[in-house]
Amino acid sequence: MPIDRKDTRWNGWGWVKAHNPLEGREPAFSWMAQALGTGALPHTPATKLEEISLSATRLGAKRATLAAIAEVRDDTYERASHTRGKSYLDLLKLRAGDLSDAPDAVVYPKTADEIVRVLAWASAERVAVVPFAGGSSVVGGLTGSAKGFDATIALDLTSMDKFISIDKTSLTATAEAGIYGVDFEAALNAQGFKHGHHPQSFEFSTLGGWIAASGAGQQSNAYGRAGDWFAGATVATAKGLWRLPALPASAAGPDLRALIVGSEGAFGVITEATVRIHAVPKASDYAAYLFPNFASGAEVVRRMVQAELPTATMRLSDADETYFFQAFGKAGGPPTFKDTLQARYLSARGMGDKPCAMILGFEGDQDRVDYGVSAARKLIRACGGIGVGRSPANRWYQGRFHGPYSRDPMMDRGLGVDTLETATTWSNIDALWKAVRGALDAAMRSKTGHGIVLAHISHAYHDGASLYFTYVWPRDLADPISQWRAIKAAASDALVAAGGTITHHHGVGEDHLPWLEAEKGATGIGVLRAVKRELDPAGVMNPGKMVI
Amino acid sequence: MPIDRKDTRWNGWGWVKAHNPLEGREPAFSWMAQALGTGALPHTPATKLEEISLSATRLGAKRATLAAIAEVRDDTYERASHTRGKSYLDLLKLRAGDLSDAPDAVVYPKTADEIVRVLAWASAERVAVVPFAGGSSVVGGLTGSAKGFDATIALDLTSMDKFISIDKTSLTATAEAGIYGVDFEAALNAQGFKHGHHPQSFEFSTLGGWIAASGAGQQSNAYGRAGDWFAGATVATAKGLWRLPALPASAAGPDLRALIVGSEGAFGVITEATVRIHAVPKASDYAAYLFPNFASGAEVVRRMVQAELPTATMRLSDADETYFFQAFGKAGGPPTFKDTLQARYLSARGMGDKPCAMILGFEGDQDRVDYGVSAARKLIRACGGIGVGRSPANRWYQGRFHGPYSRDPMMDRGLGVDTLETATTWSNIDALWKAVRGALDAAMRSKTGHGIVLAHISHAYHDGASLYFTYVWPRDLADPISQWRAIKAAASDALVAAGGTITHHHGVGEDHLPWLEAEKGATGIGVLRAVKRELDPAGVMNPGKMVI
Repeated sequence: MPIDRKDTRWNGWGWVKAHNPLEGREPAFSWMAQALGTGALPHTPATKLEEISLSATRLGAKRATLAAIAEVRDDTYERASHTRGKSYLDLLKLRAGDLSDAPDAVVYPKTADEIVRVLAWASAERVAVVPFAGGSSVVGGLTGSAKGFDATIALDLTSMDKFISIDKTSLTATAEAGIYGVDFEAALNAQGFKHGHHPQSFEFSTLGGWIAASGAGQQSNAYGRAGDWFAGATVATAKGLWRLPALPASAAGPDLRALIVGSEGAFGVITEATVRIHAVPKASDYAAYLFPNFASGAEVVRRMVQAELPTATMRLSDADETYFFQAFGKAGGPPTFKDTLQARYLSARGMGDKPCAMILGFEGDQDRVDYGVSAARKLIRACGGIGVGRSPANRWYQGRFHGPYSRDPMMDRGLGVDTLETATTWSNIDALWKAVRGALDAAMRSKTGHGIVLAHISHAYHDGASLYFTYVWPRDLADPISQWRAIKAAASDALVAAGGTITHHHGVGEDHLPWLEAEKGATGIGVLRAVKRELDPAGVMNPGKMVI
Repeated sequence: MPIDRKDTRWNGWGWVKAHNPLEGREPAFSWMAQALGTGALPHTPATKLEEISLSATRLGAKRATLAAIAEVRDDTYERASHTRGKSYLDLLKLRAGDLSDAPDAVVYPKTADEIVRVLAWASAERVAVVPFAGGSSVVGGLTGSAKGFDATIALDLTSMDKFISIDKTSLTATAEAGIYGVDFEAALNAQGFKHGHHPQSFEFSTLGGWIAASGAGQQSNAYGRAGDWFAGATVATAKGLWRLPALPASAAGPDLRALIVGSEGAFGVITEATVRIHAVPKASDYAAYLFPNFASGAEVVRRMVQAELPTATMRLSDADETYFFQAFGKAGGPPTFKDTLQARYLSARGMGDKPCAMILGFEGDQDRVDYGVSAARKLIRACGGIGVGRSPANRWYQGRFHGPYSRDPMMDRGLGVDTLETATTWSNIDALWKAVRGALDAAMRSKTGHGIVLAHISHAYHDGASLYFTYVWPRDLADPISQWRAIKAAASDALVAAGGTITHHHGVGEDHLPWLEAEKGATGIGVLRAVKRELDPAGVMNPGKMVI
């Protein structure tokens, strides 16, 4: 079922009716102000939609020819809610009432053929096309900011959300690309299967978006990244429909499916996808562990993944992240008797006062889970870790999609908050962690305070792992955009210099584009441009994102 | 250590001094003639090199400018041994003394910069460049047959064979691309590690060739296909050096490493590669099992791979293949007492007279192997399979690189022998197996006899598996090339119609090119051409292969 955009926030995260997790938590804000070395946090509410006047649509007479191909909507809420995604910059602009990049119309195709015709129309009419579905991009992948076009349309895929078929022998399933994650997973669950791709945006992202943004879910160790589970697709391009067959393996030249993963709407529009699925696992075990420091926890993650233990989730927070979430959550309350007991126990076990927490999950049949848990516990003990039970892990699991809901109320109180993610080799991960922390820390210092940097490893591979950073700082209310750009540039420069990828699973969009060539090489950028010219000769597909 | 070409056969497989496995086995040939419904097999020896006159090199004055860049060799043995690869068509032509496609010279660069300069020279001088290393292509990937060039050179990478570095924490290793598999594995083994890529061509293929041809080794379940273990590379193109960093995972646009895997020298030359490696496993278990029919064995393979059992090798022969190798090996001898006992035992266990054999191997630490073997045996029993011990599996393991040595003596006796491989989804594998067997069987029938078709599953995936066919027929001595083309076309048409890939691990070359568009789509072919134009604007890189 497509989500009614009016039920979601056009300038923030998630459901309009969702509970504000920081409602009435003034002690938490006081604690935060102290942690950031700043004064009392101001109230900085967002501009209301009814206070903003949206510029007139530029489509003119073209609207009729477009509407002859597919459904067009251009009321204010449609245009406003398709103006941008959910990056920090997007929210800064939307909350300030800046809708200057609003699309001139939103188009809702119902078939792949309609999309092919829309793209041909756009190519002929010099209209930029921004493919849009869940709208959850956090890297500026959905802005209509490209110049040099007569108009911009958002191409909303969410009317193409049919579950098409399941192959229970080959363990693959096919659906239209606009299907929301929740609906896709539910359709599979009803037949005893699961896909298992659960990014934090799970409720507000779609099958096609996961592939186009090269996403990774929180159980990627078991179910794979988009590039792992993506088996085949139909892609609508300005040159027609392109079918990429779902073959398990082939040496018939380069695997062109890899060009679709991470293509971010710049080459074409994924209209239908076939993905690898799994039987719903019969058993699972999620538990939490503590380590005396980040290095010992990382060592365990590395040894587990290199020994190919059948983990689903391995999430290791650094000491600051472990401490912050505990302290922020409890801010304002006195330490309980349980807290005191816990602190004494941890101290006695050599954990010091700032241990690092790991969430470790296994899924599969009982033998497989038993084998994994038993092998993991040996490694954990050998590296100085201790088990702290299933409750913290279950709490994390229950709340694993809720994190982004804290951002809006923090932005309402003069705070800046952003995240970035990268990946590097195991031998480089400690150096990268320090370099990025250092760069963020320096860039967030200002006359009015300083920032905090939290990090965790959330996705692990044979040869390396991802690092995910969350950072909070006192917002410069006079020029928050320049402030953010400086922080982002400092972190990105540090990432590239320290040998990390500019993005592990958020994508490129506009935000990471300046650092892409450092990773792809001038030759690689030339190749991306050549593919773009071939598939989108008029250059109308999501201009300004991923490749220019 | 580079192999001295003079120690290897310019017109056949492997070492000049290798033992002929069919030497003096006249009963085996008689058995074969009977199996093919044909008369006594004739003697059809290959033309000797000294009987062939090689055309003069066309390089002329260009030779000196080329020799100023890199080492040039153009004696007869060098040119003859670089004329073609090891496909059936290659061998037909070479054995007939047809060296019309011989390169005008063989160039041995020692650095990536030399290669960049050679490619610039070739682009300016209209000289075709065929990248060459192990020379083991079986799909016509190495011929110098493209027309429209002033000359052709083979670019031999085997002087670039340095082992560069190992990262024991990240479990990656880096080497020059011309290193032979044997040397690369030995260098790793000496430090307690292994790469684990063991194709049948292991002794005569190189690291760069494995990537360029998108290969898969016999333990690919444990160690991955080229696309799985390939982490990063330096690629020399006509536009300069392109460095693709070895990052464990990235969402920074499409993963362009995928364009290098399977590129077959048409985009550039891999000069250095970083690959994922493993600790040498402490334990292994290779054993053989029998199944009453192909479907029950395939069911076990599917359930093992979908349950993610830690297998290294799963190789299931169909009934004809199981029978053929047994019968051909014993042809001429009377049944032994052991044979009779064995037949009685199998009959009593419901195997009938034509069971299907499976080789099943596990590698890893002891816990992992134990877990895998125990889980596998449950599945095998549930599907009607029985264990027949470790000896047949060990014999297979010991002889796993010897198969191709039988082809030359068979070709010496008027036989045609070729292989093809494909992959499809599990739900389609039985239909594909029947379709290809049927097409091959019909195409091999002639007035002088008929063919035999043997098949096995050798690589298994979550959503499907490969099928490998070996087929033998009485060669049409008057026009063996047309006969082979008709058989190949019939099989390839059947493959495509039945939903298989045209190649699972041999590559495209010239032999599979006519069927590539059926898999890639016209749009995909357009993309490959666009990439080719970008990286090789003069079109001199391995012309006529993979993409034209």
